[in-house]
Amino acid sequence: MTDHYLDNAEWQAAIADALERPDSEPMFNLRDDGDVVYDAIWVGGGAAGRFGSAYLRAMGKRPLVIDRWPFLGGSCPHQACVPHHLFSEAAALLDRSRWFSGELFFPEFDESRASILDLVKLFRAGRGSAHAFMNWQTQSQLEVEFILNATAEVVDRNTVRAAGRTFTAENLVLGIGAYQKPLTCPGAELPGVLDWATLVEDLDEEPTRCVIIGGGKVAVEYGSFFQATGCHTTIVSRSPILRTPSLHHVDEGIRRYLLEGMRLRGMTLMEGTSLIAVEGDDRVTGARVRDPDGREITLECDLVFNATGERANSDAVVAALGLQTGSAGEILVDSRMRTNVEGVYAVGDLIGPPMEMFKARKCGMAAARNIAGEPWEFDFSEYPDFLHSTYEVTWVGLSEEEARERYDDVTVIQMPPKGIEHEIPLPCAEGTMLYAFARPELTGLLKCVIDGESRRVLGFHHIGYGAKDAFQYLDYLLRRPEGLTIDELGEMNELFLNPEHFIQLSRLRAGRRELVDL
Amino acid sequence: MTDHYLDNAEWQAAIADALERPDSEPMFNLRDDGDVVYDAIWVGGGAAGRFGSAYLRAMGKRPLVIDRWPFLGGSCPHQACVPHHLFSEAAALLDRSRWFSGELFFPEFDESRASILDLVKLFRAGRGSAHAFMNWQTQSQLEVEFILNATAEVVDRNTVRAAGRTFTAENLVLGIGAYQKPLTCPGAELPGVLDWATLVEDLDEEPTRCVIIGGGKVAVEYGSFFQATGCHTTIVSRSPILRTPSLHHVDEGIRRYLLEGMRLRGMTLMEGTSLIAVEGDDRVTGARVRDPDGREITLECDLVFNATGERANSDAVVAALGLQTGSAGEILVDSRMRTNVEGVYAVGDLIGPPMEMFKARKCGMAAARNIAGEPWEFDFSEYPDFLHSTYEVTWVGLSEEEARERYDDVTVIQMPPKGIEHEIPLPCAEGTMLYAFARPELTGLLKCVIDGESRRVLGFHHIGYGAKDAFQYLDYLLRRPEGLTIDELGEMNELFLNPEHFIQLSRLRAGRRELVDL
Repeated sequence: MTDHYLDNAEWQAAIADALERPDSEPMFNLRDDGDVVYDAIWVGGGAAGRFGSAYLRAMGKRPLVIDRWPFLGGSCPHQACVPHHLFSEAAALLDRSRWFSGELFFPEFDESRASILDLVKLFRAGRGSAHAFMNWQTQSQLEVEFILNATAEVVDRNTVRAAGRTFTAENLVLGIGAYQKPLTCPGAELPGVLDWATLVEDLDEEPTRCVIIGGGKVAVEYGSFFQATGCHTTIVSRSPILRTPSLHHVDEGIRRYLLEGMRLRGMTLMEGTSLIAVEGDDRVTGARVRDPDGREITLECDLVFNATGERANSDAVVAALGLQTGSAGEILVDSRMRTNVEGVYAVGDLIGPPMEMFKARKCGMAAARNIAGEPWEFDFSEYPDFLHSTYEVTWVGLSEEEARERYDDVTVIQMPPKGIEHEIPLPCAEGTMLYAFARPELTGLLKCVIDGESRRVLGFHHIGYGAKDAFQYLDYLLRRPEGLTIDELGEMNELFLNPEHFIQLSRLRAGRRELVDL
Repeated sequence: MTDHYLDNAEWQAAIADALERPDSEPMFNLRDDGDVVYDAIWVGGGAAGRFGSAYLRAMGKRPLVIDRWPFLGGSCPHQACVPHHLFSEAAALLDRSRWFSGELFFPEFDESRASILDLVKLFRAGRGSAHAFMNWQTQSQLEVEFILNATAEVVDRNTVRAAGRTFTAENLVLGIGAYQKPLTCPGAELPGVLDWATLVEDLDEEPTRCVIIGGGKVAVEYGSFFQATGCHTTIVSRSPILRTPSLHHVDEGIRRYLLEGMRLRGMTLMEGTSLIAVEGDDRVTGARVRDPDGREITLECDLVFNATGERANSDAVVAALGLQTGSAGEILVDSRMRTNVEGVYAVGDLIGPPMEMFKARKCGMAAARNIAGEPWEFDFSEYPDFLHSTYEVTWVGLSEEEARERYDDVTVIQMPPKGIEHEIPLPCAEGTMLYAFARPELTGLLKCVIDGESRRVLGFHHIGYGAKDAFQYLDYLLRRPEGLTIDELGEMNELFLNPEHFIQLSRLRAGRRELVDL
């Protein structure tokens, strides 16, 4: 029980202390010490648990959140989205500094200053601020009760033990996330084998050559960052890169621009290739791989980065409650986040892909609303998506190829136009102005895919800078029952120069009864 | 008449030649040489003329565009929005390089490399590419006929002379823009007095100290750029800065953050101050001003930048056609862009403020649709807006102060929260990650203003990076008849980390029946 609110600085000190001392005490933010039956106990206070419990509290109910970490917010601010964004921002800046080395106000690029380890240290030193803020906000603004730095043991569907006490609730909501699947080949345990989580915890020496295992977003994002710092990076992927099953709607034109850009910046991309072993005696010295022709090659490196994907952290709760799971260990839920056990909900990465923030948080909201008696369903089969290379890549809806398979009359608006992609410095806007004037071929590519018959937009695709934020609203507009037509787009008010140009480009075609490509 | 399409490189060469030679010939892109009565002649092929004529053509009609410049697109790519964006991007990058000087991968900042003149030269050398593209696109993709590098003389409402020939049309559309009002005080003609148009044409020496006259967007934008390069800049404004009549809905909290940021970066802001004279013998040496206490002071400088606003370029066409004008010389039109003379339309900056791209282009579309027989009205009294300092500042809808005047139950969602604005490194996302970890007080500020009763959002406000693009769609959503509620926002799919955080912050409050601030 706390009788006062900690401010941000106090929370930050308390969290730092708890993370440093293995024997640190649980942290309680409970309204009283009496026996309470909570409306729901949230096991896990990550994105899903924090947003879901806050929603339930806002609806007037009484949730309790328990998390093993001394902070709320989960892996996002501690190991996942936040460091990824920090590294990707650094990658974009380093990339620009290289292209403009010695030109304009850019000094000669000094690669010796570019360091993965420096950025990891910056992240480690600063992550406590976001942790503190989320504890502060959850306590003082959202008024949610929680116990942190305490492992929750699920006893049954109404009972959880934590911090030496037993808590009772009408409902349980499980949101304990996923973990990076370890590599299983020989050498997988060697120092120098890292993943997105262990990178920020364990990196202690600057790597010089990296081999990334995997072909999804994480591979592209961390690979682009490593390469931008001067750590030569090879991506080893069984599938074609960004054609992994968990990614949908990646347009082939955008993908090609992206991969060409990665090669142009010196990365080696090996598709159809699989890892056989990590080599090294007491530290990684190489990755042995089998290429598409069956040849075995050793790629020398001092960092093997495991980007093979995550697995739901479901074993303990499945054993305790008899929950049904899918083929990858994910807990099966219906569209209201209900598991097969009455009163037990599961949310976030624990229920499988997409392991994205919007899904985690909205799962939490869905569980909260259903617990509070509002039968709200959440369908996350379609959503806007993004990744970083040294660019921001954002998309929603159908790719051009998917659209052509499903519709007879597909119109594409593309910039730069097909056939002159490398001549024209568009799209230029925030983030690409200098490129537009000095390196036009590096400014990006955009595409709007339209069904000519209904005039509805089927998909938006962008590689460049500055458009990511807009895709949240384009997603909403596209997925309205009435959709979004080229005519409505053309009547919107653009903020020129705007990074994705969709409004004004649509206006150049919207006057035509029969649509044609632009 | 052209019998083939020029490609981009050919257009670029032709435009460069035309701009260099005062006696260069007009450029014709006409479908045939026969006598034609066009559906409309567009006098001026800037933003309004290019988009409007393209729309009319798309509707199956036959427009002819005539422009005095050898390119379409008008002042935007030649002197206005494009250089402004280039300079503002440079300002943001220079600003970051200063804050991080000597840290991480940033070398010691070398101010001697930062040069206004270098960026002006980069712009001059590169602007032909956008010009060429617009000519190419208008000719080959949009199939609009045009005559460039030719002054149009309006004879009567159906007749225009240009390039030694006479052209006839059912309608005229006037879109010949606006010009920077010259300073009228003594010394206004001295070399070293520049504005947004003459800066990119005439700058020949690196300025070291600048005085900007005016307190609107242009003053903030160019002033922030000059200061970022190391040219010490003073803004001299009669009104409070960004409280000029042509700007509406600027939130006071955002404004304060912005102005404090400008001062923090070394700018001098003098409000309630007016220019008396520009001093100097054969070149600017100072600006004599009267401060709010009536004292006269000379501010030493080698650049006086005139940012006092623009005036419609209406004199010649008013004289030729007897058009009605408003108090600032702007041509008066109705919501269909019709002037008082039948068959004569006016569009773009020529009809007065807001002198923004969306308005120009959509005026053109409105004229086109009405000419083609579709009675389409365009109301531009409300729209999303933005400006740059070293930040991007974007807003739509009511400011917090305006909302509190008009509604009884106003809720504000703000990040960083009120009272701890300088403790918390939010909003962090693309563009503010490094700041979030190393200079949290520089990350920005956002605000969402809500009517608690209807739960509708009244206004969105953001200073930071990366949110501008989204405001185009937020504007559309806000201005739907049904508006946009906090509940709908909270159910959207965010792309986390997203620069403006509106979706997830709304979700933290949407569960409550009675809304409260966050």
